[in-house]
Amino acid sequence: MLLPALAMLLGTAAAFAPTPRITWEHREVQLVQFHEPGVFNYSILLLSEDRDTLYVGAREAVFAVNALNISEKQHEVHWKVSEDKKAKCAEKGKSKQTECLNYVRVLQPFSAGVLYVCGTNAFQPTCDHLNLTSFKFLGRNEDGKGRCPFDPAQSYTSVMVDGDLYSGTSYNFLGSEPIISRISSHSPLRTEYAIPWLNEPSFVFADVIRDSLDSGDDRVYFFFTEVSVEYEFVFKLMIPRVARVCKGDLGGLRTLQKKWTSFLKARLICARPDSSLVFNVLQDVFILQARGLKEPVFYGVFTPQLNNIGLSAVCSYNLSTVEGVFSRGKYMQSATVEQSHTKWVRYNGAVPTPRPGACINRAARAANFSSSLNLPDKTLQFVKDHPLMDDSVTPIDSKPRLIKSGVNYTQIVVDRTQALDGAFYDVMFVSTDRGALHKAVSLNGDVHIIEETQLFQDLEPVQTLLLSSKKGRKFVYAGSNSGVVQAPVAYCRNHITCQDCVLTRDPYCAWSPTEAACVALHETDGPRRALIQDMSGDVSTCPDKVRESFRQHFFKHGGTAELKCSQRSNLARVVWKFQNGVLTAESPKYSLVRRNNLLIFNLSEGDSGVYQCLAEEKVRNKTVLRLVAKHILEVRVLSPQTPVVTIPP
Amino acid sequence: MLLPALAMLLGTAAAFAPTPRITWEHREVQLVQFHEPGVFNYSILLLSEDRDTLYVGAREAVFAVNALNISEKQHEVHWKVSEDKKAKCAEKGKSKQTECLNYVRVLQPFSAGVLYVCGTNAFQPTCDHLNLTSFKFLGRNEDGKGRCPFDPAQSYTSVMVDGDLYSGTSYNFLGSEPIISRISSHSPLRTEYAIPWLNEPSFVFADVIRDSLDSGDDRVYFFFTEVSVEYEFVFKLMIPRVARVCKGDLGGLRTLQKKWTSFLKARLICARPDSSLVFNVLQDVFILQARGLKEPVFYGVFTPQLNNIGLSAVCSYNLSTVEGVFSRGKYMQSATVEQSHTKWVRYNGAVPTPRPGACINRAARAANFSSSLNLPDKTLQFVKDHPLMDDSVTPIDSKPRLIKSGVNYTQIVVDRTQALDGAFYDVMFVSTDRGALHKAVSLNGDVHIIEETQLFQDLEPVQTLLLSSKKGRKFVYAGSNSGVVQAPVAYCRNHITCQDCVLTRDPYCAWSPTEAACVALHETDGPRRALIQDMSGDVSTCPDKVRESFRQHFFKHGGTAELKCSQRSNLARVVWKFQNGVLTAESPKYSLVRRNNLLIFNLSEGDSGVYQCLAEEKVRNKTVLRLVAKHILEVRVLSPQTPVVTIPP
Repeated sequence: MLLPALAMLLGTAAAFAPTPRITWEHREVQLVQFHEPGVFNYSILLLSEDRDTLYVGAREAVFAVNALNISEKQHEVHWKVSEDKKAKCAEKGKSKQTECLNYVRVLQPFSAGVLYVCGTNAFQPTCDHLNLTSFKFLGRNEDGKGRCPFDPAQSYTSVMVDGDLYSGTSYNFLGSEPIISRISSHSPLRTEYAIPWLNEPSFVFADVIRDSLDSGDDRVYFFFTEVSVEYEFVFKLMIPRVARVCKGDLGGLRTLQKKWTSFLKARLICARPDSSLVFNVLQDVFILQARGLKEPVFYGVFTPQLNNIGLSAVCSYNLSTVEGVFSRGKYMQSATVEQSHTKWVRYNGAVPTPRPGACINRAARAANFSSSLNLPDKTLQFVKDHPLMDDSVTPIDSKPRLIKSGVNYTQIVVDRTQALDGAFYDVMFVSTDRGALHKAVSLNGDVHIIEETQLFQDLEPVQTLLLSSKKGRKFVYAGSNSGVVQAPVAYCRNHITCQDCVLTRDPYCAWSPTEAACVALHETDGPRRALIQDMSGDVSTCPDKVRESFRQHFFKHGGTAELKCSQRSNLARVVWKFQNGVLTAESPKYSLVRRNNLLIFNLSEGDSGVYQCLAEEKVRNKTVLRLVAKHILEVRVLSPQTPVVTIPP
Repeated sequence: MLLPALAMLLGTAAAFAPTPRITWEHREVQLVQFHEPGVFNYSILLLSEDRDTLYVGAREAVFAVNALNISEKQHEVHWKVSEDKKAKCAEKGKSKQTECLNYVRVLQPFSAGVLYVCGTNAFQPTCDHLNLTSFKFLGRNEDGKGRCPFDPAQSYTSVMVDGDLYSGTSYNFLGSEPIISRISSHSPLRTEYAIPWLNEPSFVFADVIRDSLDSGDDRVYFFFTEVSVEYEFVFKLMIPRVARVCKGDLGGLRTLQKKWTSFLKARLICARPDSSLVFNVLQDVFILQARGLKEPVFYGVFTPQLNNIGLSAVCSYNLSTVEGVFSRGKYMQSATVEQSHTKWVRYNGAVPTPRPGACINRAARAANFSSSLNLPDKTLQFVKDHPLMDDSVTPIDSKPRLIKSGVNYTQIVVDRTQALDGAFYDVMFVSTDRGALHKAVSLNGDVHIIEETQLFQDLEPVQTLLLSSKKGRKFVYAGSNSGVVQAPVAYCRNHITCQDCVLTRDPYCAWSPTEAACVALHETDGPRRALIQDMSGDVSTCPDKVRESFRQHFFKHGGTAELKCSQRSNLARVVWKFQNGVLTAESPKYSLVRRNNLLIFNLSEGDSGVYQCLAEEKVRNKTVLRLVAKHILEVRVLSPQTPVVTIPP
């Protein structure tokens, strides 16, 4: 058999290398693109589903584009740094060409028709209001300190909740003072500036979860990686965290005045102890909230800090698990050992009531604690000293959903979609640092990477992903340094046979016998009864079991023939048969070129006959064998008069 | 340019992927082999340079073979488990076919003409003396407890020093009681059975270093990996250690009676903090002691515990660094935190005199401490409680000598050899878990893997390596489950041109213009003046600058041509030129087959001309371009009478 060398190269990594079944090159898929000449760093995307508009925050510019076709620009506004400010910034040792520009870092809906926008503004972060009708800034020039980083290289996250901006960023020029704050006219709040609260964090994501559990308050969750205080090794260990604050928090009256009284944080575990894999750097988070889903699920993309030569993972967490740690878990405390060492250990002592860090809920109100301003000093002092939980947040099924070697994942969005069988599938779209997008789904406990798409021609990191999941128009938008790309959630029509369509095991795609095409379910309005889809990859219901078409070729004696076999699945092994015998091994007679094409050297009469290219693919525990190409070869001793048909390679 | 896809596949790992310059397949090199039908697990090798005999310890057998040609068996003795013992072992739940056999684990010179041999003996470890003249066991059947593990799956190490056996192994059936002991008629000693002394260790290596520094005593060093008490993470962390005992230790009089009073251990650091690489599992150690070397150097082979998808490293340590940690470093102490947690921190208090764990040296004797039996209780109690040093042993140059991705290294030997320029090179021979051997050398701060040899046809782990470094007969012996292999230290004669010979940058090889061959320096007796070698890879002194030989071919119009180019360097990139123009990219016209051969499709008159295959290799900062093959092609419109010359592919 003619075997590709892939398995050898992957070596020991094979166990963590679920291969994307299909690879779409950039030129193969029709991706709508947007970029403005001279503008870079398209790092913030915001979708208005009502207006069908996508807002794009880039370096020194904000754009509005048609969300259904992002190549259609609707509006643009430029926001440049004054020459004066640029000069001052350069004086402080920063680069005029890169750092001393205005990187948009906050792009949030403020009110109907107005966006709140902040930019780094040459290390003088500034915020303004953008009128969506005129698409002009109102010229407020608010101080952006605490809302937006000074340095474009620093991490940031923010979310607008009921007109208040919740943000995680750094508070000074050096980037050495991290802060999680609420910018609010009635009750601005912030974190203590202390190592136990935030220790060199990299902010990743923030969002609000409304109080559907009737726990008494809406909560804002922050996700970040910071330097661990509780662990030690040969060098500093990073640890991924989820932190939570309550929307109703008003700070303390004396202790924790204008500080969060509800700030608690916990470890996010994403590891496989049986393989000594530990993913302790969080890259991105997506919160899946959908009809039919019992509770919100946090999806996190992680990479390892230690010995990372290309390894990524996705872990998911139930909201109730996170909440359980905050509301019932043990706290950590610091202790001094032998005068000079600080160690963090589990706190086993008595915990004051109301429980430190808890939101003001019905029980608290019943006990006359109507607001955080009423909380007893004991509770406040405790939460000030013990913001870190000892219990960890463990992932669903206690293990990663997906582990992939050879890539560094950067961003994630998840779409919950219903397949033809009525079951719901959570489809993960995960981007890489080399401009690709992986689409993966869990099928019977195994992860299946349906396809990999090269979104950007340059192998640049995908900086942001956004999902539009409106019925009939599902897209993934991706931003990078060079531009924005709009990709469909599936490329169903690229599968040209029923077998191809079913074997892709894509919940979005089904075979339509009437159309004789692979169609996207969410774009189909007609009756679904006639469609064919089987998430277990069973192709037995396909009508076109074997395509008996073939190509006939005539070749000259002594020549070389190249027989084509184009087959897209990376999971399939191609087997060439000659007169029903399998062609064994790379030999002087045969060779493979251009992936699966068969070269036959030094043709003689004995090479005449039927050649078949078969694809053998393991789907769950069954092996599916399908005929991809059939060639009939006739080798002739050339007489000068015979016309020769050659096949273009 | 026709580029191989290698670079893409290595991806982010490229930085840690020094590629072996040449790969020798098993069938390409003449390796002498030894194995006895039905005998497996050739895990212990012992060389007698006087007798030119290699002793081989395997499962249920010991062999003596000719060290110059190991395929010549001189003696053999079988040592089987009695049926009775085998049955008892099987009753305890062990496998009769694998575990309940006798695995030889100790093979040490005892006295002139006698070897000391121990085996697991169906979980009843037993030792005996082997008379080398009769090659028969003396039938002593000594209890092997503490000298040899019960379980063949468990780690072991031992060294015979002046008739006493120093061994690291487990002391019980379950393998739960680790021990480092001295088996001695006059003063048997052992470790305390306590976590601070040994915590689930995997023993790797032990050897004696004689007292050349006049520090007062010979020392025996043990190398192992154990579970760390001082570090913590999401799960148990392993840590590599070096431990040391003094030969003159007699134990304490009351405290530490029959226990080591000189047992101290320290962390071995093998890490690259700038890349977050940490290699904390020790696989093997080799002690390099050679003329001209100021002090012994410990070479260690490491793999990471965490996120190891194929990554290995070699770190080396000066003896004086190790000794400095033991003789001047801080100790660690355990402290109880909040009643229930034990933390290990630096001990900053007063240290008793004589220094705990120190050998009895001149100063101690002068202070009337003539033996460990005289040591004060304070010193003994301190070393009993503080066997672990706080200072770490850092590697030479503070970083690994070699980091390699895509492999798991298992064993190492190092040969110090003198090149033609008079400089000494320490050549590392490192084996893998897939039967290969890498030969590497540091050249100007960079590591250069000269070659990789497939020692064993099956991709099985190399279990043991041994170096024979006698002038004129340098060999590397390797043992695996299936047999023993004897490999020369270099394959100089395989390089057929002067350029090839010099570019290999192998300190063992030089070009002899008189012989017109690449010769091994250590096998050459003649004058060295005429030889050509340049460790920087400068080929300018080579006489045969360009071989102007070429091959002429005639091809038919419309046919396909395959032009050969065989070039061995994995570091070279092949460039095909046609009439001095570089052929660009894989195209319908051209393709590469069988690595570097050029296929030209659909030949026409325009394809006639000169084709050159050039190898472009970066050596240090210079690019060396050499002509590998030259073809002159003539394409003819075929008239039926013209004879056609075809090149066999």
